[in-house]
Amino acid sequence: MERMALWFELHSLQERYVSVLDNDRLEEWPALFTEDCEYGIIPKENADMGLPVGIMWCNNQRMLRDRVVSLRNANIFEAHTYRHMTSGLDITPVDADTVEMKANYVVVQTRANGESQVYQAGRYEDRVVRTAEGWRYQKKRVIYDTSRVQTLLATPV
Amino acid sequence: MERMALWFELHSLQERYVSVLDNDRLEEWPALFTEDCEYGIIPKENADMGLPVGIMWCNNQRMLRDRVVSLRNANIFEAHTYRHMTSGLDITPVDADTVEMKANYVVVQTRANGESQVYQAGRYEDRVVRTAEGWRYQKKRVIYDTSRVQTLLATPV
Amino acid sequence: MERMALWFELHSLQERYVSVLDNDRLEEWPALFTEDCEYGIIPKENADMGLPVGIMWCNNQRMLRDRVVSLRNANIFEAHTYRHMTSGLDITPVDADTVEMKANYVVVQTRANGESQVYQAGRYEDRVVRTAEGWRYQKKRVIYDTSRVQTLLATPV
Repeated sequence: MERMALWFELHSLQERYVSVLDNDRLEEWPALFTEDCEYGIIPKENADMGLPVGIMWCNNQRMLRDRVVSLRNANIFEAHTYRHMTSGLDITPVDADTVEMKANYVVVQTRANGESQVYQAGRYEDRVVRTAEGWRYQKKRVIYDTSRVQTLLATPV
Repeated sequence: MERMALWFELHSLQERYVSVLDNDRLEEWPALFTEDCEYGIIPKENADMGLPVGIMWCNNQRMLRDRVVSLRNANIFEAHTYRHMTSGLDITPVDADTVEMKANYVVVQTRANGESQVYQAGRYEDRVVRTAEGWRYQKKRVIYDTSRVQTLLATPV
Repeated sequence: MERMALWFELHSLQERYVSVLDNDRLEEWPALFTEDCEYGIIPKENADMGLPVGIMWCNNQRMLRDRVVSLRNANIFEAHTYRHMTSGLDITPVDADTVEMKANYVVVQTRANGESQVYQAGRYEDRVVRTAEGWRYQKKRVIYDTSRVQTLLATPV
């Protein structure tokens, strides 16, 4: 029963994460992280070799908020819509208020020309913690398989 | 606990919706809606501008049933198989028996030539109500991102 | 409440199945099946005609383990990463310890050149049984829509 409640709460967090990213509610995205969070986007080759070097690294919530502001102000990239699909949620409790979590993701992008295609696939490796506001990401590593990844001004994954 | 039960029931409804569409059980599809339902397929550009004008509109369950009969009789379109993937379920209770619900979808199509590809991406905006038979769609808006959408005799999304 | 618990347990089994396949933990894959399991990969055309003839058939857990050993030893195929997405889980209890289960799947593949695309779509038809170690697959039929399927030394689906 407790396992089921945890599973429900973590799925709900992931659903909310996907929902804010895909429905143009980016301003709500940083609030899903703790103040002292880490967020990184890393190619699979590096992650598999233990190298945490990626194309983006934020080490607190403020940097995530700044990133959203930049994205809103810099409308120089082509309009597009993302749909994040997730699967295979894997939960490893660390202590009563901390969980390590993994999942697959696939992002389907629709560009201004109206074509939809697989844009990126990969996995999430997260550490989530229980806070007064509910479960929040303390660490999120987005590890992408796909090597053709837009690095410039990309919206969060 | 109550939130979890609601989440379970709405996910089950969505799973059943996807299952009947993708496994050639179209005759069961209308029964997932109320008698007085609304079902529409609308391009994202229109929905974002507040225009509910789409490529299809049904305003009761009977129209959905007629549509299924038409599809079964008119075998003039190429055989294909759909697989609907969904994510990011977002639940907003309205009252004890009514919920507003959003979700992403991606449809992968396999055509007669055996090729599988992303056919359509978009979001669902639903109103579901509790009935004697369980939760049913009172309103479902399918808002598609992809502009190359087959409009003629298309199977439901 | 009991239905919800069953739904949770079967989703968890499916999530674990996807997680071991997609994260290079193939050695854990056979343990998700019973000793006397059946596992087959079958084209949709055959399945729809009631012909269980497919491109692969294993009728016990040992054959699944042998298969994993073969895959590990025979590194002659191009490196690639899979991400299995699933949807539409459909549960039919048979008795207290046996369930028939169906679901959709879509596999996105990223090849050595860094390109990600839909590799295969289809459905699972499973029989799962309750064991001392939890729910396990007694039978799993992978029924693929896509006709361009690699048959030689393919990793499990």
